[in-house]
Parts: sequence; structure tokens; C-alpha cells
Amino acid sequence: MSLLVLGTVAFDTIETPFGKADRIIGGAGTYIAWASSMFYKDIKLVSVIGEDFPQPELQLLQDRGVDMEALELKKGEKSFFWAGRYHSNMNSRDTLATELNVLENYSPVLPESCKNVDYLMLGNFAPAVQMSVVKQLANRPKLVVMDTMNFWMDIAMDELKEVLTKVDVLTINDEEARQLSGEYSLVTAAKVIRKMGPKYLIIKKGEHGALLFHDDGMFYVPAMPLEVVFDPTGAGDTFAGGFIGYLAKTGDFSFNNMKRALVYGSAIASFCVEEFGPNRLKTLDEATVEGRIQEFLDLMTIEK
Amino acid sequence: MSLLVLGTVAFDTIETPFGKADRIIGGAGTYIAWASSMFYKDIKLVSVIGEDFPQPELQLLQDRGVDMEALELKKGEKSFFWAGRYHSNMNSRDTLATELNVLENYSPVLPESCKNVDYLMLGNFAPAVQMSVVKQLANRPKLVVMDTMNFWMDIAMDELKEVLTKVDVLTINDEEARQLSGEYSLVTAAKVIRKMGPKYLIIKKGEHGALLFHDDGMFYVPAMPLEVVFDPTGAGDTFAGGFIGYLAKTGDFSFNNMKRALVYGSAIASFCVEEFGPNRLKTLDEATVEGRIQEFLDLMTIEK
Repeated sequence: MSLLVLGTVAFDTIETPFGKADRIIGGAGTYIAWASSMFYKDIKLVSVIGEDFPQPELQLLQDRGVDMEALELKKGEKSFFWAGRYHSNMNSRDTLATELNVLENYSPVLPESCKNVDYLMLGNFAPAVQMSVVKQLANRPKLVVMDTMNFWMDIAMDELKEVLTKVDVLTINDEEARQLSGEYSLVTAAKVIRKMGPKYLIIKKGEHGALLFHDDGMFYVPAMPLEVVFDPTGAGDTFAGGFIGYLAKTGDFSFNNMKRALVYGSAIASFCVEEFGPNRLKTLDEATVEGRIQEFLDLMTIEK
Repeated sequence: MSLLVLGTVAFDTIETPFGKADRIIGGAGTYIAWASSMFYKDIKLVSVIGEDFPQPELQLLQDRGVDMEALELKKGEKSFFWAGRYHSNMNSRDTLATELNVLENYSPVLPESCKNVDYLMLGNFAPAVQMSVVKQLANRPKLVVMDTMNFWMDIAMDELKEVLTKVDVLTINDEEARQLSGEYSLVTAAKVIRKMGPKYLIIKKGEHGALLFHDDGMFYVPAMPLEVVFDPTGAGDTFAGGFIGYLAKTGDFSFNNMKRALVYGSAIASFCVEEFGPNRLKTLDEATVEGRIQEFLDLMTIEK
């Protein structure tokens, strides 16, 4: 019944108009694990860290039900590090530093306990690493969700397209959908991308919400209008984690339940941006999340 | 029971990546009249044209129930003319020419038949002209909706703020909301603007939909994702026209019915962008509009 999560576990240094956070915990795997564990408790994290990574941070996730058997620790090496600065509108950012460190020659080796899973979340990683995880599985999971980014489209498009043939749901942002498809219209882009493999495509539009495309139709979930967006880092990963965590919890992959999962993902992502890094996710309780989900439904609902 | 519509009636020359249209019919008043007359038949248009304006175009609107008694024709003068070119992403445009012509010294004089109306739509116009119409009314209408733009914020902010004290609903785009309020966050901007007069604020976000703000809460209507946006000219005016047309038809100004009106406005605006100018609006029938409204509801609805 497990949910296997692949994604980086890293240090980030983040500058926003509201301040700076030095070498805080980050990485797609971290955000996905925090978000999905809000809804589902049987999670296995596949990633790699260096000797510099703080044990208490791992313990916090373990306390939430995240198994670390597939988290490789490379002795004498340093964890992946990223530094970035957001522009005043928060919609764009500059990368100031990228130190691959442990990621340089990472080739995940799945322990036996991770080879039979029901749900697979391929968080943002080199497509070759994502494919390596897929190939080590003993059975095809019930649901495979993949997130990726423009960087891999620039340098590893062929490998990325190969992974796409293995997934049910792809989550990318609007510019990435245009790059991947070569089409400007998102409707046309979605048609092209869905022919590459994924039956479902989610196009993330940041502060403008997200679109779900499927044979059965389209669905639009807004982003919650917020007074302050403090730090957008990890919001997309958090969205993906909440999305698959809710689907794993319910075990229902119908179009209608995918819509619900989109609201759950959006709700938890709306908390992520309230503080630096994953800090806000650590203090979230279920009642607060349910309250935000109701706010989302209010934002979208017309009474009969 | 009438709906009084103030707005320009003009010629536009429009260039988009799909082609060029020379001196076609345009102007905020034209788009609002076409859109609102889809839902409401007792409309009076307040505007001004020159001798060059084609009578058959006016006849088409009259056939839809739009009264022209308050449309002033200035002999020997030319109609307002605007020319613009859209960039390839359709989200921004350059103004290539603006010839005020009959607008230069326009001061509307309302005929007696236009002084007792239930609904007032102050389309985009100089704030002084908007205020002049308000002051000539014998009674306060049941509902006053105002549209305006950044141009008037740049050159006539004080007059614009005076008009704001007279309106129930303001429609502006996101950048204009930021300029008017001096706040970046749309949530904060909405609070500031709603203290200036309008109980309801609609922030239009183009291809990203629109937000409705009120004491009772927020509501988000998406834009319909389209394969082709042929010409965005007049989409905002069409939205406003559909919005007030639906409210005039139903006579219900509750928050919930405002939400519905937002969907009607968005649906009709989604047709407007399919062809040059107001051409698509001219050929629309009720069944086609109802079909698009259902598509909007499908885009937003999660079944229980």
C-alpha cells in the first residue's frame, strides 16, 4: 500500500523581499514528504544526502510516517545545495548557486521493501534517475505521478519523454507545458503532451491556480488569494505531494476525485508560501488544513 | 426598468498575430451594448459619434433593443479612432494611434427618457463624463457598475475617485487595482479600493479569470482555456456588459447572484475573443451562450 516518493533532500538559501534564510532544509523530496504525509502515513522516501544533513530534520519526517530506508547517506560528501533570489513580484527568481554534491553520481538502489508499492511520486530529478526507480519496481504501481522542470527539457528531453511513457499524471507549469509541446495555447499543449503518455496533465500557473486536463474534460482550481506570499519555494512540490497524498488516502483515481485532490494540493501549497521553506508545513494540523479546503470550496462554489 | 450604458462608440484598427482589421466597429459602449443585450432588452446607449459612423451598425444594435436617443451625432466631425497592435502572447499591446475627434469636447446631455433608470453601466470614459451622467439622473439607480482604466488613473485620479463614491461595483484589471490602491497584494488592494466606495470589486485577470471581492467573501471565476485567442479587444467591456445584463435580467444583487453574473460575463467574453472586434457577438444565439455557461460550470464543479 506504500507511496514511494523520489525527490531531492537538500539545503536552500533563499532571499525574498521579506528577508533571507541561510541553508535551510529544502528539496522536492522534502516538500513532497511533508505534504503527502498530511494525508497518508505509509510513505517511503528515495533520495540521497551528505554527511552534513541534520539528523533531527529526518526524525521529524520519520515521526510523520516517512520511512528512510531508501535514503542514501554518502559519507564524506555534502548535500545538494541551491541558492536563489526572488524578484519583488515573487513570480520570477534568479538562481545564485547550484552545488550538485551528492547528486553528481547518484544512482538510486531500491531496497526490497520499496519494490512493491501502490503509489509512485517521481519528484523533480534527472529523468535518468526517475527512470531508474521505475525500472527497479517489481510491479507497475496503481498510480504514477511525475513532476519535472524546464532544466531537464533543455538538457535531457529524450530521457524525459521516455519517463513520460510510464506515468499517469504529469505536473508542470505553463511555460514548461509550452516548451515540452512546442505549442503556445495551453489547450493545444495539453493535447500534445497527453499523447506522450500521461492520461492526466496538470498545468500549474502559480498565483493563478492550476488546470487539470483529461479525456473527460478540464478542471480549474484557483490559487487562494493571499495577503502575503512570503516564500514560494517548494509550493509546486507541496502541491504535488498533497495531490498524491490525498489520492493514496482515498484510493479513488476517477476524474472527479482528481479534482478533489487538486483542491487538497492547492490548499496545502497555500500554507507552504506563508513562511520560509517547509516551516509552515511542520506546524500544520488537520483542522487547519480542512478549514483552508473549505475556503477553497467557498472561492469556487455558486449555490443553486 | 432601463439599463443605461455609457461608453465609447468608435472605429478600431487592430493587428494581432492572426491578421489585421482596418477601421472596424469598436468602443466600450459598443461591446457593452452587444453583450448586455444578450440578456436584457431595455437598454439605452449614451455616447457620441461623428458623421462617418455607419448607420447599419447602429441599426443592428437597435434591432437588439438598444435605444439610441442618447447617442449624439456631431455633424462634420469624425468618430473616435484607436489603433493597436497585440504582441505575440496576446497579453500586451502597443497603442499605435488615438484620435479623440468627437470625444474632444464631449459633454453628454441626457434626454428625459434616460433620467430614470434602474441600472447604470459606466463604461470606460473620462471620469468627468462618467460623473456628468451620474449627476443628471433623477434618482439613484438600483445598481451602478463602473469600468475604468490606468490611463485615467495617470491623468485624472481625483475625478476617478469621486466617481468611485457613487458606484456599487467596480471592474478593473490586476495592474490597475495595484495602481489605484498602491498595494501589490490583490487581497490588500481590494480592501483599500472597497473603502473608496464600491461594495463589490471585480479584478479582471485576462486569461487567468477574475476575482470578486465583497464583505461576504471572495469568488474566483476562471477564464475558459481556449485553443485560439484571435483578438482580445473589447473582452473586458464584453465581460462587464454580460455581467450587468444578467443582473438586470434577474434583478437579484445578492453575493451569490453576483457570482452567477461573473460566470455569464466570462462566458460571453470568451466568445468575444474568437473573432475580430464584436463580430462573434453579433452572431451569438442564446443556446450557444447557455452551452458555454455549462462548460464554465463544468470547469469549476466538483461533484459531491
